[in-house]
Amino acid sequence: MKIPPVKGTRDFYPPEMAVRNFIIDGWKAASLRNGFEEYDGPIFEYLKMYQVKSGDEIVEQLFSLTDRGGRELAIRPEITPTLARMVNQQINSLARPIKWFSVPRLCRAERPQKGRLREFFQWNVDIIGVDDVPADAEVIFCAVDYFRQVGLTSEDIVVKISSREMLAAVLRVIGVADDQLERLYVVLDKRNKVPADAFEAMLEEVLSDESQRSKVIDLMAVKSIGQISELLKLSDAAQKAVDKLERLFDLLETMQIADYCAFDMTIVRGLAYYTGIVFEIYDKAGELRAIGGGGRYDNLLNQFGGPSIPATGFGIGDCVLGLVLAEKGLLEGRLAGCVTDYFVVCADERFFSRTIEVTARLRRAGFAAGFSYKKAKLGKQLKQTSAQRAKECIIIGQEFSDKNQLVVKDMTTGEQRVVDYEEFFAGL
Amino acid sequence: MKIPPVKGTRDFYPPEMAVRNFIIDGWKAASLRNGFEEYDGPIFEYLKMYQVKSGDEIVEQLFSLTDRGGRELAIRPEITPTLARMVNQQINSLARPIKWFSVPRLCRAERPQKGRLREFFQWNVDIIGVDDVPADAEVIFCAVDYFRQVGLTSEDIVVKISSREMLAAVLRVIGVADDQLERLYVVLDKRNKVPADAFEAMLEEVLSDESQRSKVIDLMAVKSIGQISELLKLSDAAQKAVDKLERLFDLLETMQIADYCAFDMTIVRGLAYYTGIVFEIYDKAGELRAIGGGGRYDNLLNQFGGPSIPATGFGIGDCVLGLVLAEKGLLEGRLAGCVTDYFVVCADERFFSRTIEVTARLRRAGFAAGFSYKKAKLGKQLKQTSAQRAKECIIIGQEFSDKNQLVVKDMTTGEQRVVDYEEFFAGL
Repeated sequence: MKIPPVKGTRDFYPPEMAVRNFIIDGWKAASLRNGFEEYDGPIFEYLKMYQVKSGDEIVEQLFSLTDRGGRELAIRPEITPTLARMVNQQINSLARPIKWFSVPRLCRAERPQKGRLREFFQWNVDIIGVDDVPADAEVIFCAVDYFRQVGLTSEDIVVKISSREMLAAVLRVIGVADDQLERLYVVLDKRNKVPADAFEAMLEEVLSDESQRSKVIDLMAVKSIGQISELLKLSDAAQKAVDKLERLFDLLETMQIADYCAFDMTIVRGLAYYTGIVFEIYDKAGELRAIGGGGRYDNLLNQFGGPSIPATGFGIGDCVLGLVLAEKGLLEGRLAGCVTDYFVVCADERFFSRTIEVTARLRRAGFAAGFSYKKAKLGKQLKQTSAQRAKECIIIGQEFSDKNQLVVKDMTTGEQRVVDYEEFFAGL
Repeated sequence: MKIPPVKGTRDFYPPEMAVRNFIIDGWKAASLRNGFEEYDGPIFEYLKMYQVKSGDEIVEQLFSLTDRGGRELAIRPEITPTLARMVNQQINSLARPIKWFSVPRLCRAERPQKGRLREFFQWNVDIIGVDDVPADAEVIFCAVDYFRQVGLTSEDIVVKISSREMLAAVLRVIGVADDQLERLYVVLDKRNKVPADAFEAMLEEVLSDESQRSKVIDLMAVKSIGQISELLKLSDAAQKAVDKLERLFDLLETMQIADYCAFDMTIVRGLAYYTGIVFEIYDKAGELRAIGGGGRYDNLLNQFGGPSIPATGFGIGDCVLGLVLAEKGLLEGRLAGCVTDYFVVCADERFFSRTIEVTARLRRAGFAAGFSYKKAKLGKQLKQTSAQRAKECIIIGQEFSDKNQLVVKDMTTGEQRVVDYEEFFAGL
């Protein structure tokens, strides 16, 4: 019986696994350097966990299941609800600020396409317990720190930043009612993702007032923070939110990552739970969907039954990022292959057991050692040694049988030496 | 709204995550040292993938789901079927022997208890394309190599070894029909897991002939390979299988891991697909269920629509192993904590932005650097520096403002030096 893989999933053969490990190892290193500790949760949670605040798009894309006890579960489509649950559970014992990261495997039943799969890995970085702009700056810095370390420059990547707090305040100035905001965010989030006429049609469904719609369209066309106050007379709340955004950009300058960052009025985010600064990360070539995104979500812990605690963070997936890294040639020569310290060559079938003995002893001593299962000719085994890029080759032949000596060949210089068996191991 | 975690799953807070990383990093290192390459598959596959050859117990414990396209899927309860599918898909391009490892997250709807959870990680190591005993010896060596490296000695751990090929041949000598074998394996696997009378009742259900039953009971009480031929006159097939087992033990001796290994007639394995040598790994204290197990499965690739290719491997879970490591005190002092190279202390609120500047610059230079969000007193921040076990502390104070100088304190010696800002970074 031949069973295919499920559409939208990936098989990680060793070459693809090496790419995944390269990406994830880089994420982990950047997280630790920036002072974040690793956590993880279960692969599934109660279904209702994702029906609270994730937004309609995510709810539609859930892989849900009912277990034998009748519990309604779902494979996690994101880890933020789990983070909120975990922090709430230990809220009294966790030292703040909580600076955590995770690299969960997530599943969403999306239509598979370039850079979008039904199963992917997502780097999540969050700071919980700091309500001030430096925390937003620090998570953005952490993402950029990764990009820079991996060789993606400000020519390749842009972090587009705005603020939902500012947007809400400005929309209120325009006259949009509070209960329209959440639906409006979903529409505004689509502004750069659908044609202009489709966007305007969606907008009309939420805002019946034409003058409001026209102001919103003008607002979304703003190119700098300064232009907002040129367009409208700001309320105190709007001015405060604008000031915060400006302070954020000052900090990004201080951190010397301003070249990676740009204000972008159209950044709103699809998820329902954002409350303040929001951002999305794109490759500048601009052919692909977002590499990642994040922002401030000050109410989420409270909505999951905990206290009111401010929080900010981001998620970056491995699919689009992997495409960008490959396109820019940044994977070449950087993937960890199979490292072999010693390849043990069996010069004659009679010595097969001794070959295994030496290989096992090398491994016990902590070295990566290989040998050939096939009783191949010496020349063929030496080729195998080169193919495995072994540093040294140990030949088990007549010298071993007669005088307990190993023939050790340096695969770089080609030099060969004869060493006593015990002396060799004593010298390792 | 407060939502609990799902029963039988785990939340990995940073301390639990450190244990998980310690275990998995050790598995990966042992795998690479032994010449295995990493692979992985999707978290779910088509449901029927597990209905083919996994055995009834696994099928009952599946977390199955139907996606929106009506596909019947299941979260993977094991990775071997995925391995078979992946190898079959690229059978003509993969160089043999295929030596692969993986550390999949697996889910089984078992009744949660000590060392048994509904979600766990399992180290899988397999050799595909070698039909000879050295491959079985090599996978067993790889497991023991991990145990030894992590500090679990032959006083702590035993690998109990038998052979289904031998068992089948001997059962045929006793007169058991071929079509009874598979059901009989399931019963024999329970021999040490249920009381003697329950075992005999189960046996009676499969074998109606009392004299056969009594011979099977005698056979299962055998304590050494030699005793088998004392009990019964072996067929050629049985003798061949016994010889193979003896060759395996010779090789384990050659590899110097015989002290970890013991013949055990009662090892049969629950999974349906094993065909030759089988083994289970236990802690010698014997309070816990198996740490892991494995064996030869020469027909599985063929059963999944591929060619006939021999294969052997094992799986070791993280739950029981974690309990054993904790019991033996082998986790103490070995878990990677949050490493901080530099903690940047802000001596006065006016310098907060400069504190962030220096922290960001350290991180850009590849160092793990921390700072305090709270505008705390100098003494409190120094305490925080100690708490984070930072190697050095950098104080941003008046010297920085006046003369562009950093005060750098070595947290081990307590020594303090004043360095020019640019000189400090040039010297890193």
